[in-house]
Amino acid sequence: MASKLAAECLFCKIIRSEIPSFKIHETAHSFAFLDIGPLSEGHALVIPKYHAEKMHELPDEFLADAMPVAKKIAVALGADNYNILQNNGRLAHQEVPHVHFHIIPKPNEEEGLAIGWPTKKADFERLKELAGSLKL
Amino acid sequence: MASKLAAECLFCKIIRSEIPSFKIHETAHSFAFLDIGPLSEGHALVIPKYHAEKMHELPDEFLADAMPVAKKIAVALGADNYNILQNNGRLAHQEVPHVHFHIIPKPNEEEGLAIGWPTKKADFERLKELAGSLKL
Repeated sequence: MASKLAAECLFCKIIRSEIPSFKIHETAHSFAFLDIGPLSEGHALVIPKYHAEKMHELPDEFLADAMPVAKKIAVALGADNYNILQNNGRLAHQEVPHVHFHIIPKPNEEEGLAIGWPTKKADFERLKELAGSLKL
Repeated sequence: MASKLAAECLFCKIIRSEIPSFKIHETAHSFAFLDIGPLSEGHALVIPKYHAEKMHELPDEFLADAMPVAKKIAVALGADNYNILQNNGRLAHQEVPHVHFHIIPKPNEEEGLAIGWPTKKADFERLKELAGSLKL
């Protein structure tokens, strides 16, 4: 499927070079550049060349291309510890309404992504029911 | 490339059904199940059928398969807000040393992934230099 961009989207403008970026890589389906508000040195973004706000709205070929590109970036950065993060919706910390995958090196406790992990008590009966009800 | 599993890995044992799981989907390259320590209802994991500790150690075909599977799960869950997270290394909050992609619904402020975003001041000269030095 061909690339599909939106006229007024910040990230679509970056893909079209209407807005400058610190570009590091490009494929037929993806564009990668450094985040200008980094959580750590090397914090990069991979964005599909297809305008969609949320991950599940993307055609599979754009989704399939993103992680191999993220891998290239992780290898180039040489980070031992890093997070891949993709946020969907304002409540989930999404800032720009165009799908973006963060590659965020975690060099130490202070820099990089800070994660809170408020685990819920597992209810195995409910998990069993939920697994059975998900239609995939 | 064929699946490659490790004898003593917890997630490889789940893929081989040596340990039970709340399985929700499977492809030639991926296995998906519900997290038994969920951050929110529907918290799921996608794991490649290839034993590697970190994302950048995976062959591309396993990486390429993971996000389309995550998309299927996101659609099935019907979550408006959710995070995709993949942690590499203990410092980056990785618990099991086999690559896993979390799909974590974010139904409200309290449940789901808690994210801290300690943005650094952008140094554009350094970003330019770094973008130029990354070999991709």
